[in-house]
Amino acid sequence: MAVETIDAVAAVDVPWIVSVDDHVIEPPDLWTSRLPARLRDRGPHVERLPAGELALAGARYVERPGTDGPLVDYWVYEELFQSLKRAVTASGRPRDEMTMTATTYDDVRPGCYDPVARLRDMDENWTQASLSFPNFPRFCGQTFLEASDRELALLCVRAYNDWMVEEWCGPGAGRLVPLCIVPLWDPALATAEVERNAARGVRAVCFSEIPAYLGLPSIHSGEWDGFFAACEASGTVLCLHIGSATKMPSTSADAPLGVAVTIGYGNCMNSLADWLFSGKLAQFPGLRLLYAESQIGWIPYLLERADDVWHQHRAWVATGGEIAEPPSTYYYRQVYGCFFRDRHGIASLDSCGVDNVMFEVDYPHSDSTWPESRAVAAEILSGLDREVVHKIVRGNAIRVFGLDDLPDPPT
Amino acid sequence: MAVETIDAVAAVDVPWIVSVDDHVIEPPDLWTSRLPARLRDRGPHVERLPAGELALAGARYVERPGTDGPLVDYWVYEELFQSLKRAVTASGRPRDEMTMTATTYDDVRPGCYDPVARLRDMDENWTQASLSFPNFPRFCGQTFLEASDRELALLCVRAYNDWMVEEWCGPGAGRLVPLCIVPLWDPALATAEVERNAARGVRAVCFSEIPAYLGLPSIHSGEWDGFFAACEASGTVLCLHIGSATKMPSTSADAPLGVAVTIGYGNCMNSLADWLFSGKLAQFPGLRLLYAESQIGWIPYLLERADDVWHQHRAWVATGGEIAEPPSTYYYRQVYGCFFRDRHGIASLDSCGVDNVMFEVDYPHSDSTWPESRAVAAEILSGLDREVVHKIVRGNAIRVFGLDDLPDPPT
Repeated sequence: MAVETIDAVAAVDVPWIVSVDDHVIEPPDLWTSRLPARLRDRGPHVERLPAGELALAGARYVERPGTDGPLVDYWVYEELFQSLKRAVTASGRPRDEMTMTATTYDDVRPGCYDPVARLRDMDENWTQASLSFPNFPRFCGQTFLEASDRELALLCVRAYNDWMVEEWCGPGAGRLVPLCIVPLWDPALATAEVERNAARGVRAVCFSEIPAYLGLPSIHSGEWDGFFAACEASGTVLCLHIGSATKMPSTSADAPLGVAVTIGYGNCMNSLADWLFSGKLAQFPGLRLLYAESQIGWIPYLLERADDVWHQHRAWVATGGEIAEPPSTYYYRQVYGCFFRDRHGIASLDSCGVDNVMFEVDYPHSDSTWPESRAVAAEILSGLDREVVHKIVRGNAIRVFGLDDLPDPPT
Repeated sequence: MAVETIDAVAAVDVPWIVSVDDHVIEPPDLWTSRLPARLRDRGPHVERLPAGELALAGARYVERPGTDGPLVDYWVYEELFQSLKRAVTASGRPRDEMTMTATTYDDVRPGCYDPVARLRDMDENWTQASLSFPNFPRFCGQTFLEASDRELALLCVRAYNDWMVEEWCGPGAGRLVPLCIVPLWDPALATAEVERNAARGVRAVCFSEIPAYLGLPSIHSGEWDGFFAACEASGTVLCLHIGSATKMPSTSADAPLGVAVTIGYGNCMNSLADWLFSGKLAQFPGLRLLYAESQIGWIPYLLERADDVWHQHRAWVATGGEIAEPPSTYYYRQVYGCFFRDRHGIASLDSCGVDNVMFEVDYPHSDSTWPESRAVAAEILSGLDREVVHKIVRGNAIRVFGLDDLPDPPT
């Protein structure tokens, strides 16, 4: 849906938004200000360097600074160079400038990296509260998984979480909701990190849609059971963002880029099937999952097919007796999805689950509806009951993430 | 939906079915009776051997006969052994016996391999006409693509097509609709084979959902343009069956089998995005595609997302100016989907397209609704207009495959 087509007169009364998928752009001094002095040069830091080529290698961009390009900002860490890109800091830019071209911190909206500026941008967008995923660490901290010095990487994970809780969420009085990362390479360390953060009130952790794609034990392996148990015990929601399996769905190297951008939600679809047949949602009945930025319109058919396979193919797709109920049962009890623009998902709300669906803003990425999110929600949700709209726009997120202390928004 | 739950009283009047996705199980002498005498021992043939292990290697089963198992039938060709399996010859078996266990031709319904028996099974199922995909050659002839002797493989492809036209479809008086395969390894030979079959009235050809997954040039490469032009000129529909990309969607090696069976349609989803952004549907406006056995409930969200990406991300997912209209435009004009049990797809019929959707029986696979297809259709389509039901159950297939000579069915 084109934002331009939205009727200026809101078709439905949208309450203040609780967005369950936004993004921080880490401030340049996040790690240099927090790592022990002897490690600061080796941790992630920003250098202004001539822009170089951006090459797509497999599913990842590989970058190196150039020699005579314009000066842009690169995050530098071990062998990695990662430029700050316009499409990732898109909010406020004209749509035709939301490209993969590198830029500088001087050229991005302060709301990307400064929580006080973010709160102002949220006010402007009718957003009361926001849960933000990481940028430089990638969507579940894969950058630190891929690092060669894991002692340093563990300190970097902890520094990110400390910054998230103390600096990012500090000024928000509950409006900026903490979302932490874990050291993915060691389930025991990951468990300890969840517990450390839960002790200071964090109720959300990034995890990979499909850890096996990262070379890690699968969710079926049993290796993560302690981690899942810690999340269940502390009420910590596993937040699975598209791209958090690194390997993205693709067809061929010469396909237009629109193909990969369109089918990016495929990993979430595969992940949900994985979870539904895993038996883990039965084993940990208090564990909750949120699929982020994958939208929801693909969920109804996936659920129907999973239930059909569970019944029709039972003779050869043995489920080990671990999933006693049709797979969709566990979805409705423990899984949540969110959307930024998804008419089909809302037209299929009975199947998506009125208690399972949440709205998101996706600030500051190029998919974001900011600063028009209220109008977008009003149009997509028009015709729904006030109570249903309330659940989707804020109520479900408040319940799932335990945001009971969020003050009543202005009316 | 469980077949057992279907109300015996049909909720809607279902006309005789034209099924666009069934399967032949090739008779044991297909190639030995048709290859030149000097090559008969080297072509595909059936041997009764002790059953051996069935190992999943990547996305494919790899088989070797055993030494002291029960005697079962194997197709033997070059280095390949492929047993006849119960789940693939499932029609008529109790559901709990639809396993991957090997069996013999003596233990399968003759309708699997004998066209006269198939016509009787079709009568019993309210099926007037049927389009059947291959079994031993796999869904688009990958078996012959993987062969080492390509001269022999080309003769095998032609022998299959001759058998399909002369023996399989011969007794049907138009009720058995020919569907041919091509030598995938050479687009020029594939073009010639389409033209050879079109000259004798064939209007359907198997092709891969994603040829690049088979190590072949992608649809974007231009290598297939002559083949697409020949299909367009002759009105030959490209029939893309799930599994025709060989590499299937999967999550991890230790995932329960239900995961892969559930998400098998993911390649069709990726394929449709590939075609929509390829520009090939604009370049060949008379070319038509059918997605088979992938059902349809995933189509509405894919179309919405493709249109959204085409609009929202235009600055960085350049479409080369080749797709002047929103991607969904080309779907509604040139692409078709089919389903065997898909409540969500039918609930979303406006988005799937009332002229784009067809019913299928999937005889004799374990997903098949035979011999209850009429009752399944009656329940899934209940509440729809008579005219809409007619389109879905037979009218769309008759129009797309040019089955104008099909007699009016008995009433």
